This record gives sequence, C-alpha cells and structure tokens, in this order.
Amino acid sequence: MRAQIITIGDEILIGQIVDTNSAFIGKELNRIGVSVHQIVSIQDDEQEILDSLAFAKAHVDIVIVTGGLGPTKDDVTKHTFCKFFNDTLIEDADTLAHIEHIFKVYIKREMLPQNRTQAMVPSKATVLKNRFGTAPGMWIEEDGVVFISMPGVPYEMTGLMEHEVLPRIQATFKLPYIVHRTVLTYGMGESQIAQRIAQWEDTLPEVIKLAYLPSLGKVRLRLSTVGDDKEITEQSVEERLSTLLPLIEDIFVGYEEDGPLEALVGRLFTGKRKTLAVAESCTGGAIAQAITAIPGASSYFQGSVVTYATQSKIAVLGVKAATIKTETVVSKAVAIEMAAGVQKLYGTDYAISTTGNAGPNKGDADAPVGTVFIGIATPTGVDAFEFAMGNKRERVIGKTVTRVFQMLQEEIVKN
Amino acid sequence: MRAQIITIGDEILIGQIVDTNSAFIGKELNRIGVSVHQIVSIQDDEQEILDSLAFAKAHVDIVIVTGGLGPTKDDVTKHTFCKFFNDTLIEDADTLAHIEHIFKVYIKREMLPQNRTQAMVPSKATVLKNRFGTAPGMWIEEDGVVFISMPGVPYEMTGLMEHEVLPRIQATFKLPYIVHRTVLTYGMGESQIAQRIAQWEDTLPEVIKLAYLPSLGKVRLRLSTVGDDKEITEQSVEERLSTLLPLIEDIFVGYEEDGPLEALVGRLFTGKRKTLAVAESCTGGAIAQAITAIPGASSYFQGSVVTYATQSKIAVLGVKAATIKTETVVSKAVAIEMAAGVQKLYGTDYAISTTGNAGPNKGDADAPVGTVFIGIATPTGVDAFEFAMGNKRERVIGKTVTRVFQMLQEEIVKN
Repeated sequence: MRAQIITIGDEILIGQIVDTNSAFIGKELNRIGVSVHQIVSIQDDEQEILDSLAFAKAHVDIVIVTGGLGPTKDDVTKHTFCKFFNDTLIEDADTLAHIEHIFKVYIKREMLPQNRTQAMVPSKATVLKNRFGTAPGMWIEEDGVVFISMPGVPYEMTGLMEHEVLPRIQATFKLPYIVHRTVLTYGMGESQIAQRIAQWEDTLPEVIKLAYLPSLGKVRLRLSTVGDDKEITEQSVEERLSTLLPLIEDIFVGYEEDGPLEALVGRLFTGKRKTLAVAESCTGGAIAQAITAIPGASSYFQGSVVTYATQSKIAVLGVKAATIKTETVVSKAVAIEMAAGVQKLYGTDYAISTTGNAGPNKGDADAPVGTVFIGIATPTGVDAFEFAMGNKRERVIGKTVTRVFQMLQEEIVKN
Repeated sequence: MRAQIITIGDEILIGQIVDTNSAFIGKELNRIGVSVHQIVSIQDDEQEILDSLAFAKAHVDIVIVTGGLGPTKDDVTKHTFCKFFNDTLIEDADTLAHIEHIFKVYIKREMLPQNRTQAMVPSKATVLKNRFGTAPGMWIEEDGVVFISMPGVPYEMTGLMEHEVLPRIQATFKLPYIVHRTVLTYGMGESQIAQRIAQWEDTLPEVIKLAYLPSLGKVRLRLSTVGDDKEITEQSVEERLSTLLPLIEDIFVGYEEDGPLEALVGRLFTGKRKTLAVAESCTGGAIAQAITAIPGASSYFQGSVVTYATQSKIAVLGVKAATIKTETVVSKAVAIEMAAGVQKLYGTDYAISTTGNAGPNKGDADAPVGTVFIGIATPTGVDAFEFAMGNKRERVIGKTVTRVFQMLQEEIVKN
C-alpha cells in the first residue's frame, strides 16, 4: 500500500515556510503500515495540481493533499478537485452548521460570505470534519485510488489525520506492519561505525534495510522492515539488534523510538528522584526549551537562568568578577562557578552550565568562534570541560545541547 | 528559469526528519531569480532517482539534488548519476587531497577505504568543493539542463550553495529579478482582512500575486512579482504596498523581509538603548531562545530566568508565597510579581513574564489548558494580561511567544 503526499503552496517553494506537515503525515502513515512513495510540493496553480493528481493516481493507492483550502482567492484546491473528478461544488449542511457554531462560540463576530463558501464541497466527496477550523477535509475514491484533501494549517491537519483520515484508511485497506528501530549513538563517525559493523551489515537479509543518519555529533542507525504479522516482523528486527548492540556498546545511547535523548534523561532523573537546574550563556535558553518541550519535565527540572550579559553572571549567579577578569568570561573557571551558582540558586542535585562563543563574531572574551565550556555540578562536586563545536552559530548551539544531554545521561546513570 | 529540487532519503518519507534543506534552497534560488517548479522527496532507490531525474529534465532548466552521497552502503546517488548520464566514476585528485587534509587536521585518525571512495566522481561532472565535509558537490550539464548534486547534511549543503552553486548559476544563466514583500499583521483573521482589502486586491495586475499566510495569531500578506529590471520590478510592488498600508494601519506590524518580529523588537531596543530581561514559566525558555537566536541580542538582552517549579518562582524571583497561595501560580498577580522580580534581578528597563498552563494536563494551579498570563514591566510600572491560547501545547507556547514580541513592540515604540 503506497501513498503520495502533495503539499500545495507557493510559500513552501519560495522557502518562506518549512513543510513540517509532510513529515508528520509520513510518520503517521508508516505507523499504520502505509509506505510513502514520494512527497511533492507544488504551486497554487490549477494545472500543477491537475498534473500531480494524475501522476499520483497512476502510481499509488492513497493520495494525500494539503493546502489551498482557505477562504481567500489564492486557494484553488476545491475547484481543481471538481475539474479533476468532473464534479461540482455543493453546500454541505453539517459543515455549514459547524462553521456557524465556530463563529458564534469562538470567533464571536458575524460570518462573512467567504466563510460560508468553506461549506462548499465536491458532490462526490465524503466530508471529513475539521474539529479545529472551518475548512473541512475531503475523501474521494475513484478507480480504486483514495484522494484525501486537508487544510495546510498544521494543527487542523493533525486533528483531521488523527480523528478522520487514519481510522478511515485502516478501515478501508488491509495494511501490512512496518517496523522502524533507530539506535542512537554518540562519539563516532558514520564511516567508522560502518567499518566496525561491516560483517554484521553483510549478513542482513534483503527485507531489512539499514540507514545511517548523522547529525550534530550523533549517528542514528535505522533498521526498517515490513511484514504481515506484527510479532514476527518485530522479532526479525529485534534479533538483528541483539547481535548489533554488543558491537557498539561503547557508543550506544538508546533508541530514538523511546523519544529523544532529553526524554531519556528526563526519565532517568524522574526515576531516581533527582533535580536539575541549568545556567545558559551561549546556548541562550535552548537547553531549557529542549527540557520543557517534553510534558512532565516539572517533576525534575527546577528551572534555569540565561545569563547573556557578563554582568548578569555576577549579579544572578554569583560568579566572581575577579574570575571573569583573570580567566575571561569564556573559561573553565567561569563554567564551574556558573554551574555551582545555579545549583545553589535552585537548590538542586545536579546543574549544568554553558559559556562559549557561538559566533558569528568574537564576543567579550575574545575566544575563537565555537569554543564552548560545559560545567556540570553533581551532589559530589563540580567540573567543566572544553569543546570546539565548529563555526556555524546554529550548529554550535545544537551540538552543545546534544553534548549536555549526553553528559547528563552518563552522570545520572553513574549515581 | 525554473528549477526542480529533489531530496533523496527514506528518513524524509518516513517522517524521521523534517526536510529543511528544500526551504533553504528554494529561498536562495528565488533570491537570484530562479523559480522553483516543484520540490520532490524520494526514496534511496536507483529507479526512483532515475525516474525523477528524467521527469525533471523534461520540465525545468536546473535540477538540484541533495542526499545519498555519504560513505555508507545506503547512499546510491553517484552510481545512479553514472547510469543516468551513461558515465563512469573516476578519482578526483583535488577532492582526495581535501579529504586527506580533513582527516589529518580535524578528524585526526587514519582514513578508511570508504572515505577514499568519496573522492570518486562521475567523469562528466565538474567538482564543487565541499568546504565543510568530505562528499564533494557535482555539476553536470546535458542537453541544456544543469544537474547539481549536493550532500544532504544541512551545513555542508548551505556552504556549497553559497560558495559554489549560486555563483555558478548566476554566471551560467541570464536571470530575471524576483521580488517578494511580506507584510506582517497581528490581530485579525485572514477572511476579515480579505474582505477589508477586497477592492484593493481586485485592482492588482495579473503579474503581482497576493498570498495570505496565517499562523499562530499572525497573518502574513505576501506580494510577489518577477521582472527583468530590479528597480522597475521593486517599484511596481512598492506602489501597491503604498495603497495597501493605509487600509491595514491598525494591524500592521512590519515586513517579514526585515527579519522576524523578534529582530524588529531587538532593533528597537538597541536603537533606544533600552535593556530587557525575561522570566518564563510555561514558555520554558522559548522566549529567550527566540531572542538569542539573532546575533547581536547581547546589546539589549541581559538574560532570563526559567522558573519552572513553583518553589523557584519564590526563591529566585521573590514572588510572595502568599500571592501564590491566594491567587494560584497561574494568575495575574503572579505574572506581575515575576515581571517585577526579574526586572529587579537583572536591573533592566523592561521585563516580560509568562505563567500559564501549556498542557497537555492541568498543572499545579488547576487553570484550564491554554490559560496564559503575560506580565510586562516598564520603566514606569508593571501590569499583566490574560490570554486563552488554545489547547495544543506547542501552539500555546508559539502563540504566547508571538504575543510577547507584539506587546514588547507596542510598548517600546510608545516610550
């Protein structure tokens, strides 16, 4: 069972927005056993949409289209669907009632004529209720191929996927079982890993695919396969993992399917009833944001301080002015005093600090771009380590955040 | 002049990563006058790549391919290029020397055989030097169409685009001039805006396209056009803007091309020599991160505190325990004390605070999911305001961050 994802919108092609919808849809389809053949982003243009629908119809079983359903003139998807399916628009009573309800209860103003047009749908379409907006989803079957249209607004689309599209696909098709297991490693490059596991990789059967995914100091190894039986399919991958893991014990961090590294660290802290505080300089809040992006962080994360200005390191964290003067603000000594300071400020078991130069220019301390010190305070002491994180601002921050969670994991496992 | 972007990698199709490369490439191509026809993401599969190259060759002038150039077995792009162009791989001496240099100076270990294979390129290709990695870019012309291949690692790809691909495209083709101007608005829905500017929209000439882009409380209005002469093309859009702006004066925030709202706020603070501190609870560091993501923030941003645990609001910010007890932690009174507390802690002119419930569950304060209080302290006083930000965690945080910068903008302009 194969699907084509078509995202409509000039804003994607000119790079004004990043298309996150496709990744979500791809992941969810995979979860229920549908493989994604291609993702195509096209212009808000009738001919482009018609061509893409025809191409998809010839190649896949399920066509998922997002975008072009808004109330404004640049949205052309519905009229184009009518042309493609030789259909006309009719007003859907349930959708109209839903739109009227949204305006009355939430938007609290009079409906405009263009809001009413959102209740118009192709007569051949089954309407999929959009709980979070006024543009309905649509489901049309023709010649054994299912066409689904959803708005491009991410939270409306995700609601439609969850409540309407996925259950309906599962009810319509007999689907196989797709398994992905992704091993997180830290501390070795992909070619080195490939060499180390070459013999193991050579014995992989054709049906199990291995992919290497390097990013920001981590390499992810993904094993993927597909089968009819859930248990047998999962078992086939688990067997291969059981022979892989002993080969990479020293760089193994966990499984991506168990959540990102910060989720793993969060579970370890929560399980051991330990608390954490963070003092960030060069990472500017990125560590706190990664921690709090995961619900439940409040069970171990007390809080953080972003001391961006040098003076604030002294005033808020109690870093000594003399230390900054003799060692500079980007130094091991300052990282240590920051970690100890924030540990005391929040009264936590553990604390992390970062001070460095993320670029693009040299800062107060004259340290080379990419120099980062990470401090770590534990119940038994405090220390800091120096890293060279490259010369691109975003990457320096990203690599530092990865390294912080890797250090926290190592430290909390020990204690 | 039209381009097709082809991104190769199963990790995109299964939603394991979000394809940010295409957005970057689309934006950069637009900047130099190349329109993007489509973005297509395909599997690491020889036949899929061959089909996509053939389709692109029939439809566009420039084909940009990313991914599949790594040293491991799942990377098949180079062999597939040889098949498509009826070519063979040869070892490129300059690339080999570059790889040897990288291993000697940066990686500091022996090269493996698979690292050496990265110096193999199709004989018909012009090699594009990859300053930030071992996999070279490639440029092949056939029948008037240019094919460009780059690695999928974002910082390697962006380096190749900047130093090799864009200058070479500009030298090869005579390009038109593409203009996008995007007006940021805040406080009104897209259908309401559409109604208000309907007459103006009707008078737009065919060559100027208008798009509505709603997201997280903002609506962006984008005007796009293309022409041969830079000055005349820009002028045609500016004229339309000059008649649009008076119609939306009350909701106008700025231009997206001048950077995001947080960059605008940063420029205002820097220009007026005012300082800012932030106390975050439900936003968990997202405001600090948005501020510090922009280089130069240190000229006005003193720092922030993320007081995630209730106790830390008392210990770090000096919020009164009695206030939390009587008003609950998600309240106007606590937001006010947090803003005043962080203003004092960092000694700044302005301060912002957030306290709320981002979900997914009700927290300590029993406030409904989506309830957020934003506090703002200025040189003349402190106040806080209540908002209902919906019921999706990510969205609550995103909308709160948007609203914070909008409030800061209003406030700093006043003073």
